[in-house]
Amino acid sequence: MRLTTYTDYALRTLMYLAVNRERLVTIQDIATLHTISKNHLTKVVHHLGQIGLVTTVRGRNGGLKLGAEPQDINIGALVRQTETDFHMAECFDREGNRCVFASNCVLEDTLGAATAAYLQVLDGVTLDKLVPATGRPSTVSDFQPMVFTSRPPAPR
Amino acid sequence: MRLTTYTDYALRTLMYLAVNRERLVTIQDIATLHTISKNHLTKVVHHLGQIGLVTTVRGRNGGLKLGAEPQDINIGALVRQTETDFHMAECFDREGNRCVFASNCVLEDTLGAATAAYLQVLDGVTLDKLVPATGRPSTVSDFQPMVFTSRPPAPR
Repeated sequence: MRLTTYTDYALRTLMYLAVNRERLVTIQDIATLHTISKNHLTKVVHHLGQIGLVTTVRGRNGGLKLGAEPQDINIGALVRQTETDFHMAECFDREGNRCVFASNCVLEDTLGAATAAYLQVLDGVTLDKLVPATGRPSTVSDFQPMVFTSRPPAPR
Repeated sequence: MRLTTYTDYALRTLMYLAVNRERLVTIQDIATLHTISKNHLTKVVHHLGQIGLVTTVRGRNGGLKLGAEPQDINIGALVRQTETDFHMAECFDREGNRCVFASNCVLEDTLGAATAAYLQVLDGVTLDKLVPATGRPSTVSDFQPMVFTSRPPAPR
């Protein structure tokens, strides 16, 4: 059971923006830092912009910044937006479900309850809880691009 | 976020065996009933045999039966066995993790807590709770191959 890479990148993008609030960030910054595809990340950032979590400042010195306060960005709500679905078994897929048990089975309810419990934990977490507290520069510095000095991007 | 098809098939296999305890079942029975790959199902059944949840009776009239009482088959324990992993983000992958946040981040703890909550729900469920109660043949009949009369296998 995994979350999608899409959600992983969305979380990392927001976390990076949350600890770099004093400056604008580019997609290239984040892509380079994580050695991930800029194209993939562009789609994620576009989506985050659509749902108001990222704001783009245009122009030569433009870039990205958080579209909301970290304490107002709920992780459960985010994951619901970025995951394609929570189809735990074929019975969750209304159109593609061919399971002959479907009409007389509590599996969907059971797995649905487990999924609800998963999301309930994330509903109790906001972005500020995922990153170092502001006002602690020595901790925040671990999130800066300086980490490249000790961990270069993996070769492609 | 999804469980694997492997887990889905494991659950359906055990549920089918649980409501057909008066007879031996073949892998072909289950594959035909669900119109799924017999090869894929064979791997699942082999795995279920290895962990003691399915017993194979050899011989001309042989087949499969449950290896334990339905009330003793815990769904949380099963899903832990059949899922490849619960890597919710790159930081869960000890060997492949390149996330530069890893050393100073509570994302893994947060997603780990959510996953634990998911599994905790399933830990409270046993196989007997997923299938119609025994002694109610009219309900059990919904699980019999007779459903083919109303829902033929999809064309391949």
